[in-house]
Amino acid sequence: MSQFDKIAGEIKLAHGGGGRLSRDLTALFAQVFDNPMLAPLADAAVFDLGGARVAFTTDSHVVSPLFFPGGDIGRLAVFGTCNDLAVMGARPLYLSCGMIIEEGFPAAELERVVGSLAQAAAEAGVTIVTGDTKVVQRGKGDGIFINTSGLGIIASGADLCGEEPCPGDSVLLSGTLGDHAAAIMTAREGLRFGGDLASDCACLADMLGGLLKACRGVKWMRDPTRGGLAASLNELVEGKSFGITLEEDALPVKPAVRSVCELLGFDPLHLANEGKAVIVTRSDEADHALKILRGHPLGRDAEIIGRVAEKPMGRVVLTTTIGGTRVVDMPAGELLPRIC
Amino acid sequence: MSQFDKIAGEIKLAHGGGGRLSRDLTALFAQVFDNPMLAPLADAAVFDLGGARVAFTTDSHVVSPLFFPGGDIGRLAVFGTCNDLAVMGARPLYLSCGMIIEEGFPAAELERVVGSLAQAAAEAGVTIVTGDTKVVQRGKGDGIFINTSGLGIIASGADLCGEEPCPGDSVLLSGTLGDHAAAIMTAREGLRFGGDLASDCACLADMLGGLLKACRGVKWMRDPTRGGLAASLNELVEGKSFGITLEEDALPVKPAVRSVCELLGFDPLHLANEGKAVIVTRSDEADHALKILRGHPLGRDAEIIGRVAEKPMGRVVLTTTIGGTRVVDMPAGELLPRIC
Repeated sequence: MSQFDKIAGEIKLAHGGGGRLSRDLTALFAQVFDNPMLAPLADAAVFDLGGARVAFTTDSHVVSPLFFPGGDIGRLAVFGTCNDLAVMGARPLYLSCGMIIEEGFPAAELERVVGSLAQAAAEAGVTIVTGDTKVVQRGKGDGIFINTSGLGIIASGADLCGEEPCPGDSVLLSGTLGDHAAAIMTAREGLRFGGDLASDCACLADMLGGLLKACRGVKWMRDPTRGGLAASLNELVEGKSFGITLEEDALPVKPAVRSVCELLGFDPLHLANEGKAVIVTRSDEADHALKILRGHPLGRDAEIIGRVAEKPMGRVVLTTTIGGTRVVDMPAGELLPRIC
Repeated sequence: MSQFDKIAGEIKLAHGGGGRLSRDLTALFAQVFDNPMLAPLADAAVFDLGGARVAFTTDSHVVSPLFFPGGDIGRLAVFGTCNDLAVMGARPLYLSCGMIIEEGFPAAELERVVGSLAQAAAEAGVTIVTGDTKVVQRGKGDGIFINTSGLGIIASGADLCGEEPCPGDSVLLSGTLGDHAAAIMTAREGLRFGGDLASDCACLADMLGGLLKACRGVKWMRDPTRGGLAASLNELVEGKSFGITLEEDALPVKPAVRSVCELLGFDPLHLANEGKAVIVTRSDEADHALKILRGHPLGRDAEIIGRVAEKPMGRVVLTTTIGGTRVVDMPAGELLPRIC
């Protein structure tokens, strides 16, 4: 039996949703491509190149709609790739930009997207050094898809500390949950929820670079995009001899995002973010790390949201406001297609 | 007036065809992204990174059909990106792999594609170190699109010599013209032309690496993909104070490819290749370079096809079999959509 039989016939939208099926598919690819650099399935590969410690990552962006409150596909493509480098402790330097454009895509929209890519690159301090453009027939694409791959350098003294997370460590979140997904959903459905629903789409490199320099006990970071915080933390604990306990009261969620979740039946823990980092640090540094994060414009709403626990091993649990606990599973099912 | 008004309303298939419109669009992007590394519009960006001379490139692959005589989208994606590095004098090392899959894509085809990517990477001696998978709804994609970005190292002593091409230099081609495009066209149209119509899809890194080590007078190389040899050479001479003269008799074209061209009205100079290099070298090294190429399995049909000439400046001309000359223009119009 082929491992691909697990896919059960054909690819479903959920294979791209960031939850369990996505994770299984990625693991399958890693098995076929079989190499130690891909195996950790981190946000970026890390290796030595000519004496430098380099991080390399790729992301294709298929977000729909292309323009939404707080951002657009161009900003998402640049910042998303920068963030994948930044959470590995790298300073983003160079990006590639591969566009797949559908025949008939309006020149005016292309101009907006390309201008936005350039503007975002300037803001993030990265250079788009190489590119490629393909055009597919009408009905064989959807406006524009953008792949950005990125290269960054990991400087010693501003990197992750190299230790594995262990019980007692603190878990921090750099800001409110779910803003990006809520903005996309409401833009897509044409809903209105007051003024503050906007994507959090932002480049984390400056804030995380500052954090790593100031706090030498940072062990692990991720930007919780597809699948949200639940997916990122489940990936961390899977198969490990520790678990994570979150405090529901400590989770920052904007009222408007909470309303969207209640109305549409979503859990903020499952919603994609595009300008947030979840961080595991030695507990004796947690308060200092929180202060550093809150001192940055992108980290004003940062919180210590939980801790690494001895058990339940391999699980993420939430201590609820009323004092109960519930398991936070890896999201399953379709979630939100084309959120990024 | 915006520069994007040149696009005249909307993107056409020809904007991805490798000819004049592609070139104009790419130049427009380079203008917006505005930086010295992107400006040369070479096959890969070259820069220093931590003491190493690095080449970085990206290519999205949207070929249709996915499987064709001589290759498939997986081999094309790996070798195409390796070739973009190799023609810049780099040894390809690391690839990323970003897939955009259409909902409903059969698991069995995905298994073939992923297996082919892995096999091609092993053959090319590169490692796929990072990846990303997105899924789009049925009718918003076309099976699978694959972006591969690549990183390579340029070693001193095995690099291009750093001199600009000048009149008197020789132009070499590593093998027959148009095999890839002819194979795709016939696979697409369901035509049959005897047994030897197959894509030339191959990794040029080993052959070109050997050439650069043996011949220190190699000035310029390209792999003539979309737009064919005509596009690559026109890009070289555009705005320069030299031209190129090709000898029609010296151009290697397989009889079956010539038949396809005659039947369908194509010029072999405009057809995409996926395992060929065009090379400009000092003329005193041309014979030695030819010998090196022919000594490699991928270069058995190599020829010296022309020379860099003083005039006509900025033009490519062909001396025909019957002794006349004709201008070889940058291809215009649609050519072949989704050839790679």
